Amino acid sequence: SCHSLVVEDIFLQREQNLGREGGRECKAAAKPQVEFDYDGPSMKTTVPGPRSKELMKQLGQIQNTGAINFFCNYEESKGNYLVDVDGNRIYLCNHFSLDSLGILPPENFPDKITESLLSVAPSGMTRVQTMSCGACSNENAYKAIFIWYRNKERGQNTPTNEELNTSMINQAPGCPELSILSFMGGFHGRTLGCLATTHSKAIHKLDIPSFDWPVAPFPRLQYPLDEFTRENAEEEARCLEEVEDLIVKWRQKGKPVAGIVIEPIQAEGGDNHASPDFFRRLRNIARKHGCAFHVDEVQTGGGGTGKFWAHEHWGMDDPADIVSFSKKLLSGGYYHKDELQPDKPYRIFNTWMGDPSKNLFLSEVLNVIRRENLLEEVTRSGKALLNGLYELQAQYPSILSRARGQGTFCAIDAFDDATRDRILLKARDKGVLLGGCGDRSIRFRPALVFKEYHVNLFLNIFNDVLAQHK
Amino acid sequence: SCHSLVVEDIFLQREQNLGREGGRECKAAAKPQVEFDYDGPSMKTTVPGPRSKELMKQLGQIQNTGAINFFCNYEESKGNYLVDVDGNRIYLCNHFSLDSLGILPPENFPDKITESLLSVAPSGMTRVQTMSCGACSNENAYKAIFIWYRNKERGQNTPTNEELNTSMINQAPGCPELSILSFMGGFHGRTLGCLATTHSKAIHKLDIPSFDWPVAPFPRLQYPLDEFTRENAEEEARCLEEVEDLIVKWRQKGKPVAGIVIEPIQAEGGDNHASPDFFRRLRNIARKHGCAFHVDEVQTGGGGTGKFWAHEHWGMDDPADIVSFSKKLLSGGYYHKDELQPDKPYRIFNTWMGDPSKNLFLSEVLNVIRRENLLEEVTRSGKALLNGLYELQAQYPSILSRARGQGTFCAIDAFDDATRDRILLKARDKGVLLGGCGDRSIRFRPALVFKEYHVNLFLNIFNDVLAQHK
Repeated sequence: SCHSLVVEDIFLQREQNLGREGGRECKAAAKPQVEFDYDGPSMKTTVPGPRSKELMKQLGQIQNTGAINFFCNYEESKGNYLVDVDGNRIYLCNHFSLDSLGILPPENFPDKITESLLSVAPSGMTRVQTMSCGACSNENAYKAIFIWYRNKERGQNTPTNEELNTSMINQAPGCPELSILSFMGGFHGRTLGCLATTHSKAIHKLDIPSFDWPVAPFPRLQYPLDEFTRENAEEEARCLEEVEDLIVKWRQKGKPVAGIVIEPIQAEGGDNHASPDFFRRLRNIARKHGCAFHVDEVQTGGGGTGKFWAHEHWGMDDPADIVSFSKKLLSGGYYHKDELQPDKPYRIFNTWMGDPSKNLFLSEVLNVIRRENLLEEVTRSGKALLNGLYELQAQYPSILSRARGQGTFCAIDAFDDATRDRILLKARDKGVLLGGCGDRSIRFRPALVFKEYHVNLFLNIFNDVLAQHK
Repeated sequence: SCHSLVVEDIFLQREQNLGREGGRECKAAAKPQVEFDYDGPSMKTTVPGPRSKELMKQLGQIQNTGAINFFCNYEESKGNYLVDVDGNRIYLCNHFSLDSLGILPPENFPDKITESLLSVAPSGMTRVQTMSCGACSNENAYKAIFIWYRNKERGQNTPTNEELNTSMINQAPGCPELSILSFMGGFHGRTLGCLATTHSKAIHKLDIPSFDWPVAPFPRLQYPLDEFTRENAEEEARCLEEVEDLIVKWRQKGKPVAGIVIEPIQAEGGDNHASPDFFRRLRNIARKHGCAFHVDEVQTGGGGTGKFWAHEHWGMDDPADIVSFSKKLLSGGYYHKDELQPDKPYRIFNTWMGDPSKNLFLSEVLNVIRRENLLEEVTRSGKALLNGLYELQAQYPSILSRARGQGTFCAIDAFDDATRDRILLKARDKGVLLGGCGDRSIRFRPALVFKEYHVNLFLNIFNDVLAQHK
């Protein structure tokens, strides 16, 4: 039966979506019902009660719980009343915080997050902070980095009054001149903090004020990678040297680099790859200079590269200090090491802190990925796809070049941007939706269920498109 | 029946939530099914076809549609295939954009947004941009302001190569030194752009790099407002003078004020009110100096003040250039005037651009608000609540003062922060969940269904808390 939208429940809607139906069918069914109302609060324990405290302890292993009031039983909560997990019925005169996973999480939240997000936590990370979208995930990851960096500088000292007062008017020392080092061609989102680390297309950045933060070159490798080992190693060494120079230079400028952010494959910027060796060395440079190492897996995470996280291809036990995600994990967030946990509640916070219904869906997605061995499937399809692209670029050398990829996360370059755009439109009219990235790349981001026979079907149509173009 | 999570549909999940059930019950039902797969694309028209073009034209009245590929029929879409509204079956090699309202919206999106968000558009505004959360709403509203401001300065000219090139490395003139003027005590979110305009609590801002943007004083009025008319008018005049001084000063500094952002009632900062006259004059100052006027209704919108938008209390036909919202409207976004529409697609953009299922819920919430005359109800309850608070502060003058409010959006001050916090905890143990704001205020944010008898029930319990405290 449809969860009818009786008026008392309006603002419980978000939580109740967790376990009930909602949406289009409800519309027909929505009609006034006999209103039910409890006749007042009813208390069995002080708040938070023992069950809430137990759940806080459990969730405390994963997140900062300082802002949590208590855990809710949303099934029993009605109208102006919240029922908590200790059976207390509490009168709500402050509805604004009701949607918040950070203040009033549902009882099953610690279990659900353990089953879903924590079951795929990157190596070395036991904590995860949920967020609504990719940009918020990176914004808050940067904030966690800045807070960690300043606390490290401060040692055991508490913030001075001068810091507290100047922070209120955006001035140092309260708002320090720290920076995040990012890479030319990188993409980390479009809100103002993220945008200061995004350098893929001018149209994303034009006219928006930014921060004076260092931008390092990302290696421009030659493909196929194994045919240009020496040249590529030289290019990577050049970029790493520049990274260290920039860290030193920005420290001298009084804007120390608190963190380095990088994608395992620069996606929006044109599917630019680098070797595991490059990332291992970069991670060491971050460690050496006391910068947090933030791997942005918003685009690469979720299995498209044939491993759940693209950074697993580097083969490291300690790949990063922070790993952010969104999109294919159905909602956003970031994993982090213990020491990047802010020392106080409300320093990393917002109203919703993610969406618990999305974590439920994620559990199911992960079950399917495991049951159907989809990562192996991706690896197999990815090989077929990349081999097909190699053949096509041999067949149409005046149109295509630089085929590259990991799993089905593949790309190939067109001769120029006009050619690329014509190919994309022609393919769309033949019923194949491709995407573009960088200046003149065609990108492939099929679903995890894109199997070998799908690859062949695609290659046939793509061949037709190219033959007609030629 | 439960929409079972067959693997082909994993990444269609977000859209399909629109019209189907999902969530907890699905878990039990999730099991491998006989997989259904179309045998290839099937095209009836070029893409976008005539129906997609028609819908683009319709949505074009409301939003920039430049990034839209086509409109989808998500009911018919399966596995690796999208079916569009013209009956074309399209093969998906680029899943990453699938969740996006900005690229592949469902057929009913223009209608749904007209029924929901546009049916409550503020006076003078015909366009709305959906977003996932409050912080993203404000970040993108600021970006729209910066883009509008620079386009105004540029006139008919296109951006120079220097602008395009410098924008890629965060430098002027591509990333210009523009600013947003905000108010001490204001709260507009916690991502880096928003945070530069937030000035309510140091703990939100400490250690996070910021922008050198002007911060004006917000009037500190005496309550009840009608007993201090003259004093309050003087205080408001002082603040408005300071606003103009700051605009001039920042222009001279080379960081012109592109926009002014303000809450109708400073909420997080301690429920600070100002008169309609103050807002009318401020709006005129913005107009005079060519700054966009952005009213942030993330906390005040949705009916709690007794009008759907708090700015309606100002009685203006042209209250603002941008109005942002989130929370009580179930997802985020902002309304704006035509001229604040960016000139190109992808300048304001992200993966999800909001959540269509939340807009469906909003339609129902709005229906209930209208059917049950909830705004009148709020006005009535609000009067009872404020009168009750006046009586309590007369009864407990050593504990309480400065009762104030509009609708049920009320607050009262405690003697100091320790007293406030003790009262909040004591009330919670008696089964009443209140909230705090500012240094020592207790805030009331009941649901729209908080009726007069709920007010009386609350006042009785609150009286017990205060009696015991005394």
